[in-house]
Amino acid sequence: MAESADYGLKCIVKLGGAAITHKHEFEERNNENLSLVASQLREAIMGSSWHGHGMDWSKRIENNHKDFAHEFGDQKIDSSAFVVVHGAGSFGHFQASRSGVHKGGLHLPLVRAGFVATRISVTSLNLEIVRALASEGIPSVGMSPFACGWSTAGRNFTDANISQVANAIDSGLIPVLHGDVVLDNSQGCTILSGDVIIRYLAQQLRPHYVVFLTDVLGVYDRPPSDPNAILLREIAVDEDGSWSIVKPMLPHMNKQVKITVGAHDTTGGMMTKITEAATIAKLGIDVYIVKAGTDHSLKALKGEVSNISNEWLGTMVRSSSKCIHSDV
Amino acid sequence: MAESADYGLKCIVKLGGAAITHKHEFEERNNENLSLVASQLREAIMGSSWHGHGMDWSKRIENNHKDFAHEFGDQKIDSSAFVVVHGAGSFGHFQASRSGVHKGGLHLPLVRAGFVATRISVTSLNLEIVRALASEGIPSVGMSPFACGWSTAGRNFTDANISQVANAIDSGLIPVLHGDVVLDNSQGCTILSGDVIIRYLAQQLRPHYVVFLTDVLGVYDRPPSDPNAILLREIAVDEDGSWSIVKPMLPHMNKQVKITVGAHDTTGGMMTKITEAATIAKLGIDVYIVKAGTDHSLKALKGEVSNISNEWLGTMVRSSSKCIHSDV
Repeated sequence: MAESADYGLKCIVKLGGAAITHKHEFEERNNENLSLVASQLREAIMGSSWHGHGMDWSKRIENNHKDFAHEFGDQKIDSSAFVVVHGAGSFGHFQASRSGVHKGGLHLPLVRAGFVATRISVTSLNLEIVRALASEGIPSVGMSPFACGWSTAGRNFTDANISQVANAIDSGLIPVLHGDVVLDNSQGCTILSGDVIIRYLAQQLRPHYVVFLTDVLGVYDRPPSDPNAILLREIAVDEDGSWSIVKPMLPHMNKQVKITVGAHDTTGGMMTKITEAATIAKLGIDVYIVKAGTDHSLKALKGEVSNISNEWLGTMVRSSSKCIHSDV
Repeated sequence: MAESADYGLKCIVKLGGAAITHKHEFEERNNENLSLVASQLREAIMGSSWHGHGMDWSKRIENNHKDFAHEFGDQKIDSSAFVVVHGAGSFGHFQASRSGVHKGGLHLPLVRAGFVATRISVTSLNLEIVRALASEGIPSVGMSPFACGWSTAGRNFTDANISQVANAIDSGLIPVLHGDVVLDNSQGCTILSGDVIIRYLAQQLRPHYVVFLTDVLGVYDRPPSDPNAILLREIAVDEDGSWSIVKPMLPHMNKQVKITVGAHDTTGGMMTKITEAATIAKLGIDVYIVKAGTDHSLKALKGEVSNISNEWLGTMVRSSSKCIHSDV
């Protein structure tokens, strides 16, 4: 790992679709949550003492025309390098599923229309998230994977030039990417999910840690709606990618737990989430899965949960070598 | 020219900021014009007999939930390859000029904020233009130059991987690009104008012709508000890039006309427009500068003005070798 390029990236954060949209209401953002998330991201990226000026100077923002130029001053901004990736939630899902765009066939009229319609939906959400972050003073820039030229082959992510993302980070900007529809070398087109993008970026950019912001406290041993559901606090990932629950020690399991995939999560259940997290943790990068807009998410975003206390609620997924080390 | 790659591109069209926005009203689209332009583009791209279904399936579009999947059928869509590039008009200008983002210095708080604010403004316009085209059934996809990873060095356009644009065309999609702020290797950041993007794409993709849609009939010998202004109908460009007016023969000039740069055009006057057009025409690519939403623009978009009739009103800029040929 020491030989890989160091982009100085502190954190990749996933804004889960369930956290920033109302999943069951077509194209409805969860503005309350989004505002909380943006505020916590500002604190994690810019520092708690920094109170900068908004960077969305659109007509719809109040006082956009006042003479604010002098307020910005000329002191250097000392911000941490973050990359934000968001899911689609209730944006894009209808358009994608109605057209079957994930199955390819871009030459077919319905699929082509669905490709266009899905991109309109997810890029409109991306613009609103960039606006929310910019309003907090985070120098966020939308970078749409399709426009980045990222594509797949046989639905596997193969071709992604990350230089534009790396250059944006290097320039002090915060790239905001999203799950998107992209061209596929063999089937024409497909869906590239935010989770797959995060895995790839983590491999290439080697952040110190990765945070998944979701709508529940973390990963449970059964659907979180079940009153007996137990929050998994720490998961250890072996070098071969297999994983086991370290904390809490559950009586009914040996090494590996069978996780019930929650029906509420149509883009891949908790099992998928752990598998994705395990792929990242295997690289030696700690992953925190945590509820958006809580004290726990703020701690995670700041990277202040390396020693799990009982007060911190969330799921940490990390390399088993690290777990052993911290437990000794 | 015969040795350059043929991407099968029929036309690059510039939607001038003056044509699609109200230039003097902050962030106000000219929706009437935009709708006319979208309709004419549909006819030029998809053919006059084609009446496809809208491709914007957002919440704000009526009947987005009805079961329309079967309506699309499975016949192949026979569309022409177009690239659309639009200017910013009253979007982005305020944010860019207030922060001086064209002068660079992305490490300065005001410039960084202006970079973010300008991108929000121009990408919000881009999304609306993609929506307008998609609503007409044009398979349009927004491709933001910054997200494409395009950058400049010393304010000159040097680094642009056009493969994503070429791949989109090849997949039957219509890329929609725009003037943007981008990273600059030497000064940190700058503005990349739509006109510069068009010149580069024309060089690389070799379209059959290029159309500039504007808010006046074409290029005049003085500001078009002057009642004595004369519309220049044909301009010939020599191999060295110098140009002269072929039609009409103006009594007060010899070979080269001195064009007054209109004060109404802050992004570069008519002189700039002719110089940009001449750079493209020099490559053997005809350029039509024409008023958006008129019979003349429809003819131009369809490429049906190769022999200029007196009925067609607009400015054609083309290689002098072609002019001599057509005049014989």
